[in-house]
Amino acid sequence: MTTQPNASYSYTVRLEAPSRGNAVSKLTRTVEDAGGEITALDVSGSGNDRLRIDVTIAAYSSAHAAQITDGLKAVEGIEVGRVSDRTFLLHLGGKIEMASKVPLRNRDDLSMAYTPGVARVCKAIADNPEDVRRLTIKRNSIAVVTDGSAVLGLGNIGPMAALPVMEGKAALFKRFAGIDAWPICLDTQDTEEIIRTVKAIAPGFAGINLEDISAPRCFEIERRLREDLDIPVFHDDQHGTAIVVLAAMTNALRVVSKDLSAVRIVCSGAGAAGTAIIKLLLDAGAKDITVADYHGVVHLGRDDLGAEDSDLRWVAEHTNPAGYTGTLREALAGADVFIGVSAPNILTGADIATMAAGSIVFALANPDPEVDPESAREHAAVVATGRSDYPNQINNVLAFPGFFRGLLDAQSHEIRPEMLVAAARALADVVKEDELNANFIVPSVFDPEVATNVAAAVKNVAVAAR
Amino acid sequence: MTTQPNASYSYTVRLEAPSRGNAVSKLTRTVEDAGGEITALDVSGSGNDRLRIDVTIAAYSSAHAAQITDGLKAVEGIEVGRVSDRTFLLHLGGKIEMASKVPLRNRDDLSMAYTPGVARVCKAIADNPEDVRRLTIKRNSIAVVTDGSAVLGLGNIGPMAALPVMEGKAALFKRFAGIDAWPICLDTQDTEEIIRTVKAIAPGFAGINLEDISAPRCFEIERRLREDLDIPVFHDDQHGTAIVVLAAMTNALRVVSKDLSAVRIVCSGAGAAGTAIIKLLLDAGAKDITVADYHGVVHLGRDDLGAEDSDLRWVAEHTNPAGYTGTLREALAGADVFIGVSAPNILTGADIATMAAGSIVFALANPDPEVDPESAREHAAVVATGRSDYPNQINNVLAFPGFFRGLLDAQSHEIRPEMLVAAARALADVVKEDELNANFIVPSVFDPEVATNVAAAVKNVAVAAR
Repeated sequence: MTTQPNASYSYTVRLEAPSRGNAVSKLTRTVEDAGGEITALDVSGSGNDRLRIDVTIAAYSSAHAAQITDGLKAVEGIEVGRVSDRTFLLHLGGKIEMASKVPLRNRDDLSMAYTPGVARVCKAIADNPEDVRRLTIKRNSIAVVTDGSAVLGLGNIGPMAALPVMEGKAALFKRFAGIDAWPICLDTQDTEEIIRTVKAIAPGFAGINLEDISAPRCFEIERRLREDLDIPVFHDDQHGTAIVVLAAMTNALRVVSKDLSAVRIVCSGAGAAGTAIIKLLLDAGAKDITVADYHGVVHLGRDDLGAEDSDLRWVAEHTNPAGYTGTLREALAGADVFIGVSAPNILTGADIATMAAGSIVFALANPDPEVDPESAREHAAVVATGRSDYPNQINNVLAFPGFFRGLLDAQSHEIRPEMLVAAARALADVVKEDELNANFIVPSVFDPEVATNVAAAVKNVAVAAR
Repeated sequence: MTTQPNASYSYTVRLEAPSRGNAVSKLTRTVEDAGGEITALDVSGSGNDRLRIDVTIAAYSSAHAAQITDGLKAVEGIEVGRVSDRTFLLHLGGKIEMASKVPLRNRDDLSMAYTPGVARVCKAIADNPEDVRRLTIKRNSIAVVTDGSAVLGLGNIGPMAALPVMEGKAALFKRFAGIDAWPICLDTQDTEEIIRTVKAIAPGFAGINLEDISAPRCFEIERRLREDLDIPVFHDDQHGTAIVVLAAMTNALRVVSKDLSAVRIVCSGAGAAGTAIIKLLLDAGAKDITVADYHGVVHLGRDDLGAEDSDLRWVAEHTNPAGYTGTLREALAGADVFIGVSAPNILTGADIATMAAGSIVFALANPDPEVDPESAREHAAVVATGRSDYPNQINNVLAFPGFFRGLLDAQSHEIRPEMLVAAARALADVVKEDELNANFIVPSVFDPEVATNVAAAVKNVAVAAR
């Protein structure tokens, strides 16, 4: 667990201190001694002998924040008042809103945007259904759909507790790709009911982004919706992650001068993300992937592979050419690449040391990776994680906004595997030859080329496939 | 049908004309002679002997607009170019969008609005579900739900063709009450499927506005959803109309100095709006209502009343104290009030002349009322219609934004009949004593007191009922 203060644990403490003496320098020292970071200090009121001060402090956890505040309370002469958590302040009332794009100043405006004028527009769409993409929000709108069953690392917290994530996702869609996304939080976790509901609400949207739905239900829900709907359906936890992993892998392999079709890859985790990563790597040309879950390496001799059409069986059928049957550790020895989308701290630096020279380690479990990144770095040539406080963050924000932008621009009715590969290559290519190194295999999420390049690549595939 | 040019049929014609001579005055005269109205004339380009002119013209129908354009083409020296329909221009790309309320400028912003910071907010809601109204968009969000089965006067045009109306409605919710509404257009017209879908998507919303769903399905859908959901469900076509009718009736009765409990009321139409109006008038104290549909007056002797719990049977049981069994016309003779929510031109001025002295006529069929308003006005003391080109427009925009504002402000879990009565009274009272007259029984939709007064009244009832 990190002990670096960061914005997600920043808070503002209102306190009163004597205007004379060294109370202010004492409070600064108290925060710093406790490992906190003062990011702002505003004197918001002043009397003859008292100051009112708002101190904004970054901590590294809730417990750490409480500990710093307790330290401040103990400083002589200082009186601690209201403590405001900045992350909670930002969430008050929600993070997104609906906005009108048309003026409604007078009766004439109303008569065009609403009755009676709107009737002619409705009639035009009834007469020519294709016009719905020209005359309504459908062309640029997607639903961000969750059942709250696998939210971040929090698990099954339900649809209402998932809403802040869906709002954040919607805000990211707008910020990075100009897409109008609205959260749809479902009061059911039944596969059939979810499929039925998403189909029922589809007419007003040009795409569906499934989010934080647990495996294995997410696979069937996505597959069935793709069959039944005429708009693209994307499960970001699977494909968003897979695109960014393939992009990062492409650049990591460039750094170590190895070829995807020649390397031996070992994956830990066969959940939603793991399975999608494996499929995409195979689609992109990987030949030798071995997968392990908590029962060890996945192979056809295991008796827990499930039904004939289960995804785990699919994995067993399409991986492990060397026929491993033991543990993750055994398969890892001599491997070129490790990809973890599983659980924290299942490997050590010593395990990484058994890999081939010039090894690549993607330890993506969040917030605590499969192996401590510092230890991994001692032995591997390239290390990536899901965390923002290390280099090479595998962050879905690099993929989903541009990917959907491309789908919407092409008015695509489907998602093709080639689109995922094309998106990953476009994303990898945002990192220029002279920028590429072991600590810079993915671009910044704020690089404006990210979404535009990914969108263009996806659109090209969609248009070519018509 | 009106022959008054209006904004909903306004369009811009780009044309070229000689810079010398009287071509411009000829074109102006041509438009005026054809009954059109020039609302703007911009010279958008000029050469030595040619002018490029954008003329914006209001017509009264599509055919009229085409006729005016043909007239322009016939003017010597004028060359007509692109013709742009302003209502369609305004609809390009849709009328609403999603907007982020939080900045996403840098990594710190991302870490608070999205991962990792958002996880703490999710956890807070999981621990204390009531917090969802504090920390998410739920508190201010409603779904505008339609199946496209009864859209305006256009009938069953389906969910996609209904979308422009739903967008307009969402824009009005924001404009008049600051509410974030998102359209949900359903790909089903099955009662059970609609109920199931709305229940499934409810967690992210604080209210449901049902819209343009045909009778009698709309009754059951609303009733069942109210039973099953813990958020208010409002069918605007029923209750929005009923609130505005009761408000307008309250003021019309003030104008003629009659009392609601003493007047004899005749209604034409027992559909969604008609039934809701009847119920609300009874709730507000009306004692003598007679209803007619296309089979004549509704009475208990009719053999087409349907099931025991049908809405038409309910009407028969609660109206017609005098026991009429004949036609609308027979019931109308001597009545104080006529309310039509049925079909165009079913009555004449002569029929209105048979009503009691000081009669009130609300002829609300759209776009063509039950009786020509001009003819009605010759005999009735007060006339109201659904149209914007006559005084006393019965317009739902007067009710639904403020009504939902009140519900959301009170965090109400339900809609009570007293709320509808209170909303109508509050709306009526926006018209001050010294403003009230036969041509001003409802306030302007742009009067800022409308939404705030209605909202306060609804909130008061909700809070008192806790």
